[in-house]
Amino acid sequence: MRPGLAYLWGLRRQHGMRLAELGERKAIEIISSLLDRAPDAFPPIGDDVAGWRLGGGLLAILKTDMLVASTDIPPGMTYYQAARKAVVMNVSDMAAKGARPLAILASLGLPGGLAEEDLSDIARGLNDAARRYGAFIVGGDTNECGELVICCSLFGLCHEDELVPRSGARPGDILATTGGFGLTYLGLKALLEGIELSGPVREAALKAVLMPEARLEVGLALARAGVLSSSVDSSDGLAWSLHELSRASGVGFLVEEMPLAPGVEEEALRLGLDPFEACFYGGEEYEIVMTVRPDGWEEAVEAARRAGVELKRMGRAVGEPGIWLREPDGNLRPIEAGGWEHFRSGRHGDGHGRDAR
Amino acid sequence: MRPGLAYLWGLRRQHGMRLAELGERKAIEIISSLLDRAPDAFPPIGDDVAGWRLGGGLLAILKTDMLVASTDIPPGMTYYQAARKAVVMNVSDMAAKGARPLAILASLGLPGGLAEEDLSDIARGLNDAARRYGAFIVGGDTNECGELVICCSLFGLCHEDELVPRSGARPGDILATTGGFGLTYLGLKALLEGIELSGPVREAALKAVLMPEARLEVGLALARAGVLSSSVDSSDGLAWSLHELSRASGVGFLVEEMPLAPGVEEEALRLGLDPFEACFYGGEEYEIVMTVRPDGWEEAVEAARRAGVELKRMGRAVGEPGIWLREPDGNLRPIEAGGWEHFRSGRHGDGHGRDAR
Repeated sequence: MRPGLAYLWGLRRQHGMRLAELGERKAIEIISSLLDRAPDAFPPIGDDVAGWRLGGGLLAILKTDMLVASTDIPPGMTYYQAARKAVVMNVSDMAAKGARPLAILASLGLPGGLAEEDLSDIARGLNDAARRYGAFIVGGDTNECGELVICCSLFGLCHEDELVPRSGARPGDILATTGGFGLTYLGLKALLEGIELSGPVREAALKAVLMPEARLEVGLALARAGVLSSSVDSSDGLAWSLHELSRASGVGFLVEEMPLAPGVEEEALRLGLDPFEACFYGGEEYEIVMTVRPDGWEEAVEAARRAGVELKRMGRAVGEPGIWLREPDGNLRPIEAGGWEHFRSGRHGDGHGRDAR
Repeated sequence: MRPGLAYLWGLRRQHGMRLAELGERKAIEIISSLLDRAPDAFPPIGDDVAGWRLGGGLLAILKTDMLVASTDIPPGMTYYQAARKAVVMNVSDMAAKGARPLAILASLGLPGGLAEEDLSDIARGLNDAARRYGAFIVGGDTNECGELVICCSLFGLCHEDELVPRSGARPGDILATTGGFGLTYLGLKALLEGIELSGPVREAALKAVLMPEARLEVGLALARAGVLSSSVDSSDGLAWSLHELSRASGVGFLVEEMPLAPGVEEEALRLGLDPFEACFYGGEEYEIVMTVRPDGWEEAVEAARRAGVELKRMGRAVGEPGIWLREPDGNLRPIEAGGWEHFRSGRHGDGHGRDAR
């Protein structure tokens, strides 16, 4: 093709679609398709964590996730809380796999106008979150960046036969989760849209957004009990988690009870919001969504209870494709894929993270 | 203090100095001072890499470093080259310690306007660089970000008694490096200021900036030979590297010969630039700067030669503090601390990395 014609063919031809059109999942597919596969890597690319076989059945577990101010820091979140969240969101992925984090590196992209106290708050947030989950910040680096970026990388260990993949769910397995959903949906509505929540729910909803917790101890206990067939963390929303387990395992799901957190249904209805939306499409919740082998259910409940968590049974895996909620009237309502997706879903803050104080 | 008075006391009191005034090194000190220390971590925070004792003398080696478009991508660098550099700059730190990288995670902050082809170029750059050094990209994540950010995290293994720290130099040790300096100084002048370089140096200088290499094989060979007392990578400039070894080891250095790359001295003089500046303050060079125990020098030279590298002897460690160059006339010229420092040293690009194509 002559250069003139190539030019007329236009930018789309020359550079392909833009990320804003492609969306995050397609972007990950493109990248993943261009990477050589490592024989010693396990689980394969696309699970919550990466791993590397050390021999003797032991895996080095590796995880990285980047917190970016404009998409991950809602108004009202402090620097301390932002740094803490950057650790929690990574620990949550290790928790879902049954891996204990040991060492954390923190790579910081910092705007030049950041103040010394803000930097100290970031350091304290990182350290406190690491220590809370038994890990240490052992290194990192600092960089100048147009907006605040905190990229944590975690190292941990796990026995290969204890790691719970996304791919092991079988029809008949019990679908369960470590906690209730919907609080972050309400909390983000309050912080982003100024919706007034009523007293008791307000506190829980803001805490869920600003001071989230990872389900590490219960994740470790369940993995060690050896009764889970699959699991995933729920940070991209419960609907997304179910679709991920469904895709990776080749099963469908019938949800028989919405695992709503206490007070969410009443508050949503009071505000004219759909509890279904709050349950499945909130996102930024750090629960573990899992399938349990039917003969291991009692053991799972007991292991979780010893770790201080009451497992919520929400349904079961089925052989037919599709993910459905059985409503109280018996109707089946489809739970479509959805949830937070970078490049498509908009942004939390004002694009410069200056809300983090 | 009453609120009114606190307000009059001003922002400086309330929020401390800004990063742009503090500089990167002070920022790192502040962060580091607030972190709990891990008993199983080795080497301590502040060396080129972090490590975690796995037992049996084996260390898990961890490294993260973030490439940010506005400071790390000069005009004329492609997305492929930028992604490649994001890997190389991390591998270089492992090389300096004698650790082999095995698995790499890549966390990407991507502007929404990035095109599909650019994304593919980034993936190819990451994969090619990882494979070149025997490692694999085993995971990562993608995020929306105002400017291009590529944060790589490396996992590798190393025997604790082979890891070369920054802190082991003793007076009398031979100061050496794996290659010549000054090409990136000229190359960055060409890319950032439009200075015209003459033919043969031009090619080498642009290659040094756009397609740098990490000194992995020679780093591993030297560490295994067991003859190094200290080492550091030179990505922040040769002067900075010498000051780091000096600070960590408590020695001074007498540099008897500037380790200039071929052609740099003549080209610098032709352009009215100071070869001393080119040698010590270029930065973004990925050589290993090391001290060798005097009785191990021949073995070090031989180990390096087998890895295809001719060691450059440049001086020696001395008991007196300070770092000096002995000039041809016998005068001692001080080599001041300096080199690239985030928040203080300005930026490469236009602040948005749109030069990366």
